[in-house]
Amino acid sequence: MRNETVAKKETAIVLKIVIDTKGSDKGVDTIIKGVSMALEKFPNVNYLLVGDEEYIEAECKKFTLSMERIEILDAPEEITNYDNPAEAIFTKRNASMIKSLEALSRREDLFGFLTAGNTGALLVGAMRYLPKETRVRPALAALLPTQIGGFACVVDTGATVDCTPQMLHHFAHLGREFMMSVYGIENPKIGLLSNGAEESKGNKLAKETFPLLREDKNLNFIGNVEGTNALAGICDVLVCDGFAGNQVLKITEGTAKRIITDVVKYARKTQSEDVNALIKQLLAIYDIESLGGANLLGVRKPVIKMHGSMSERTIVNSTEMLLNMAQNKAVFAENKYVIQDQKGEASEE
Amino acid sequence: MRNETVAKKETAIVLKIVIDTKGSDKGVDTIIKGVSMALEKFPNVNYLLVGDEEYIEAECKKFTLSMERIEILDAPEEITNYDNPAEAIFTKRNASMIKSLEALSRREDLFGFLTAGNTGALLVGAMRYLPKETRVRPALAALLPTQIGGFACVVDTGATVDCTPQMLHHFAHLGREFMMSVYGIENPKIGLLSNGAEESKGNKLAKETFPLLREDKNLNFIGNVEGTNALAGICDVLVCDGFAGNQVLKITEGTAKRIITDVVKYARKTQSEDVNALIKQLLAIYDIESLGGANLLGVRKPVIKMHGSMSERTIVNSTEMLLNMAQNKAVFAENKYVIQDQKGEASEE
Repeated sequence: MRNETVAKKETAIVLKIVIDTKGSDKGVDTIIKGVSMALEKFPNVNYLLVGDEEYIEAECKKFTLSMERIEILDAPEEITNYDNPAEAIFTKRNASMIKSLEALSRREDLFGFLTAGNTGALLVGAMRYLPKETRVRPALAALLPTQIGGFACVVDTGATVDCTPQMLHHFAHLGREFMMSVYGIENPKIGLLSNGAEESKGNKLAKETFPLLREDKNLNFIGNVEGTNALAGICDVLVCDGFAGNQVLKITEGTAKRIITDVVKYARKTQSEDVNALIKQLLAIYDIESLGGANLLGVRKPVIKMHGSMSERTIVNSTEMLLNMAQNKAVFAENKYVIQDQKGEASEE
Repeated sequence: MRNETVAKKETAIVLKIVIDTKGSDKGVDTIIKGVSMALEKFPNVNYLLVGDEEYIEAECKKFTLSMERIEILDAPEEITNYDNPAEAIFTKRNASMIKSLEALSRREDLFGFLTAGNTGALLVGAMRYLPKETRVRPALAALLPTQIGGFACVVDTGATVDCTPQMLHHFAHLGREFMMSVYGIENPKIGLLSNGAEESKGNKLAKETFPLLREDKNLNFIGNVEGTNALAGICDVLVCDGFAGNQVLKITEGTAKRIITDVVKYARKTQSEDVNALIKQLLAIYDIESLGGANLLGVRKPVIKMHGSMSERTIVNSTEMLLNMAQNKAVFAENKYVIQDQKGEASEE
């Protein structure tokens, strides 16, 4: 439909993005409202919406969406947070998550995927439908704002809650590649989340991971990073197991939300213009829920896992993330790093 | 020296508190300045200061401390964060940490202990010098402010970074007993930190701990709590391994500090009275570094581990914590709970 000559590289790209309309705590209408905002903001993005066809159609009418840029794929079933991921992938064939992944795997016109559904099912499903040739284990990377501006890539934030040192070593590479290809950071600084900055600190997993990262010449490893400095901007990639990383993500989010709520209450009481302006400034940095979702790294196509409590702005911001990736291409190229030979040197210094 | 009749119960208690003057990143003078503030605020508290005698004396003179309420114990050595805790306890006999613990163990007039030193050495040392008869494993509990007012006891926050489900079960009891005896909470609500609120969420450790907590009739177990709600006020005790708990503590602290720094910068720019008043209000809740330290639970006398980056106010607040404990007595009574028989039911529902 669009045939004007475009000068800027970005607008020359036309993307079709798959959205799983189930799995959000806020319901389908929040997603469709987000899609409507995104369609307006990004004239070069189209969507394939997966879920209850009739319901999606009705919601699209409600928000008066241009159906020329929307395709709907019917998927009556849903994988909930109470399902066993490994089983659900095989038994709920008509679930929106599975239908989405199948379409992504088969169709070349589909660029990437947004879902707020079951994390475990997404991981298992993505390994089945979108595996890389290298069969590396995927990880969920969240981009969190750092104190010095910019973002740190926290990986993993919940895809794998029980990890081996080798997995954390892989995560370091996945995070590195992502920050290089998508954010253009030249030699990303890699930090290992620990309970202190000293090399001697760490649980068994962190202590065994430390030498793997240090001895890998392809990594710019800066050592252990403690929670207080996790987002100080001293590292571009923060490596951790999915359980600890989930805490980094959610505690940051919870604390920020809570303090901003206090500031909002104070603003209501004082009716201060200055405080209202301050709130806007804080929300621009710390509204983590709306920042966009976590990136599933190590799969064949870009996949973004949105928070269950996502807002309509999450759709806009996640779409922008995917556009950014499309412009930088390299994300879905195969993983080319080689893990250094390890001589079993897990000894502490 | 004080022989006026006192009406209030609190002021009738005279406490002598041991302070390890080494181990703080801010140096001895910050500690002595804190002691000087605390002496003024609490007329019924005396101190035993352990460290370099001459240096402490000089600092006391600088801050014009009343030497009637100060005793000094010379300890020329220091256990640093680079020492191996288990070794240092035996080789550095003249370290301030060891001298302090020895004195606490031997002398009945010493009520409790404040230290910003090596956490591992404190744990090993306290197990050696201040063991309970039940030989339960000690844990570090931090009191963090909740969204609904009051505090949640996060246990463990770093004493044991690799835990078993049995240890977490013990931590639940330690936290429960602490919140009952020191904060007078009747049947403390116990939450288990996880990566989601559903029972199916959790790493191996959390999943194996869940049934132990649920089936223990002495615990008011509310289930899994995710990071976003860790300090929402839904639980009085948040049980976790020391690695994850360290993240809860330090990420909360780091995020709060960072947002408040942003607000301070904004206040400087706008010179707004309203914003300045807001900062005071935020600091009163979120200045976690100064809140007082983490309580080492499961030992014979009250021990507070202060943050390495403590301020002089940490001494004042930690002293107040010890006074509070003295008034409630029960803290250093022996642990009386009985672990319910477990029938190996670690199955998920």
